[in-house]
Amino acid sequence: MAEGKIFIFDTTLRDGEQVPGCKLNTKEKVELALKLEELGVDIIEAGFPISSPGDFSSVEEISKAVTDVTVCGLTRAVKKDIEVAAEALKKAKRPRIHTGIGTSDLHIKYKFNSTYEEILQRAVEAVKYAKNFVDDVEFYAEDAGRSNIEFLARVTEAVIAAGATVVNIPDTTGYCLPHQYGEKIAYLINNVPNIDKAILSCHCHNDLGLATANSIAGVIAGARQIECTINGIGERAGNTSLEEVVMVLKQHELGLHTNVKTELLNPVSRLVSDTMRMPVQPNKAIVGANAFSHSSGIHQDGFLKEATTYEIINPKEVGADSSQIVLTARSGRSALAFRFKNLGFEFNRDEVDELYQQFLVVADAKKEVIDEDLKQLAEAFKAAVSA
Amino acid sequence: MAEGKIFIFDTTLRDGEQVPGCKLNTKEKVELALKLEELGVDIIEAGFPISSPGDFSSVEEISKAVTDVTVCGLTRAVKKDIEVAAEALKKAKRPRIHTGIGTSDLHIKYKFNSTYEEILQRAVEAVKYAKNFVDDVEFYAEDAGRSNIEFLARVTEAVIAAGATVVNIPDTTGYCLPHQYGEKIAYLINNVPNIDKAILSCHCHNDLGLATANSIAGVIAGARQIECTINGIGERAGNTSLEEVVMVLKQHELGLHTNVKTELLNPVSRLVSDTMRMPVQPNKAIVGANAFSHSSGIHQDGFLKEATTYEIINPKEVGADSSQIVLTARSGRSALAFRFKNLGFEFNRDEVDELYQQFLVVADAKKEVIDEDLKQLAEAFKAAVSA
Repeated sequence: MAEGKIFIFDTTLRDGEQVPGCKLNTKEKVELALKLEELGVDIIEAGFPISSPGDFSSVEEISKAVTDVTVCGLTRAVKKDIEVAAEALKKAKRPRIHTGIGTSDLHIKYKFNSTYEEILQRAVEAVKYAKNFVDDVEFYAEDAGRSNIEFLARVTEAVIAAGATVVNIPDTTGYCLPHQYGEKIAYLINNVPNIDKAILSCHCHNDLGLATANSIAGVIAGARQIECTINGIGERAGNTSLEEVVMVLKQHELGLHTNVKTELLNPVSRLVSDTMRMPVQPNKAIVGANAFSHSSGIHQDGFLKEATTYEIINPKEVGADSSQIVLTARSGRSALAFRFKNLGFEFNRDEVDELYQQFLVVADAKKEVIDEDLKQLAEAFKAAVSA
Repeated sequence: MAEGKIFIFDTTLRDGEQVPGCKLNTKEKVELALKLEELGVDIIEAGFPISSPGDFSSVEEISKAVTDVTVCGLTRAVKKDIEVAAEALKKAKRPRIHTGIGTSDLHIKYKFNSTYEEILQRAVEAVKYAKNFVDDVEFYAEDAGRSNIEFLARVTEAVIAAGATVVNIPDTTGYCLPHQYGEKIAYLINNVPNIDKAILSCHCHNDLGLATANSIAGVIAGARQIECTINGIGERAGNTSLEEVVMVLKQHELGLHTNVKTELLNPVSRLVSDTMRMPVQPNKAIVGANAFSHSSGIHQDGFLKEATTYEIINPKEVGADSSQIVLTARSGRSALAFRFKNLGFEFNRDEVDELYQQFLVVADAKKEVIDEDLKQLAEAFKAAVSA
């Protein structure tokens, strides 16, 4: 593989779908999976086959429907889970089983009432068992973000020796700061002797608003896969936003790249939002309705002189409608003049000054000044001048 | 001041309000300002007085209405702006004028058609002029995120010498990575000789989803103020989320703290959302409707054994309703049994196993399984058993 290629592991249909009220049926999941393949993600986590008949059938149908993308099914470190996932993935061209177990002291004590040695053994057994069914086995060390780092390194080494191709280091509770998460990845890269036999994956949650930054810190430190969802949906505060990490890697020269066709980001975002009935807030980065709207006067003035003064991404690059100049009481003369010009009215500077005062009265009374308001203003002004 | 105190500069009513369609009237702004003061923010940026009569009156009325909080008015580095801001702030107990100018090469060239020397002079003159009206003058170096760092250091030194009490380092376009933003702050702290006479402020935008991480990197590097908005609202993809940075600082032992009363975060979030008619997406960190909902079986099982396995923040700490156990096809037996128990039905393990299969059929057909469905399931089950 290319040194700087970051694999995008989309879990919109598994971790993303774990949102109350957003459950999809198999037909909807297959449609979304085909779109995700078109978008250029490398792996689609299609479901958790043992969890319900619906999930089993979704993984099975997606495996049949897609062409080249890897299809992944989630399991616990439990034989029955792994068998059922293998069965659901039977028709996949590139199947992956994603198995794992909690590795933090909290999880080991309260969830499993177990010990480091037992957990290590269960981890290795699960990976070995999954290898009977598929070549591509990913292991997750649940709550890795709060796990003892030396134990995490031992687990990582052991599962790679057992055949894991990817080791996932989830910040399950969204707790880490970016530099802490990056240090964990760096520690594993520097302290796990067989680390060259597998890649590390970042799976971050957004409980403190840090999922994107943590994932980026992870790949800067050497991880080569990011697990993410469209619109950042998922359990609680959600997962890492696919669109955000992809655009960070595109904007910054880190020597890292993905295969995502960025011009499809906005269409796919809308499709997921509509299918799941899950609104995207207007100020969501990259895919929010206002992500490329300039409303303040200072910004509009600068933007109209040179777009890059206030815009680091061309909206077309991410499939958004072109930048909007929305008129509010915060807008300046240049924006007003720009919109008048678009409507076919040319005014000189003194005229714009005068119209601007009238505009502000309208704008203070209204949330947004629309074309119809502007036409009325302009025509009343011209009538007064010629009278 | 205490060494580790981070000043929270709330700009919900200025930068936050620059959202298309979210303009507030003076009465609404005064109500929100009073709530922000109760929340415990240190500075309220109340508006941009010269931009419109509505903004002027809002700054004036907020200045009269609040008690102890600092009230700040925005200006460009223009005498008339500063005079008008000073006039609007006349009644404030603690007035602050926030003046500044673009310092990036892009802004200097395209917005101002100017030079480093001219920009430096205008910056110093603006600060000196503002000092005629108020003691507390904050200077912003617009587009600092993309400014030449040596020039930024020269500007910082000059405006502090001219009397600036705070120097704001905005990542205006949301471009920086956290380590880059942190390095800028560290550079200024290490290279500006009079830096001990002022504090540095982080003003980050969320265009790449990194505003929270950048602000935190900034204060770790030595900045002592964060500019933010409730729900992260603002121009384009919005500003740093107040609730996120406050909770990061509360959760992590960085030796830093704020005065924010975190149990008011959710009520204030809802008030801002309702007043601005600006929805908060369900998976928004800290204040989203689902921020504390557990729906997958693995998570619910762990959560019920010990909440901290999947929850780093107690919902009560941020004024949210208590954690919810939502039943979907992803839910496990323990969640089902928990909800049955809440409804007064006690089943043994074998019974729960059997009921769980019936539950999954219902859950696969429905988005969410509610109490009424559970009662029907339980009663049909009991009737069948006793028949």
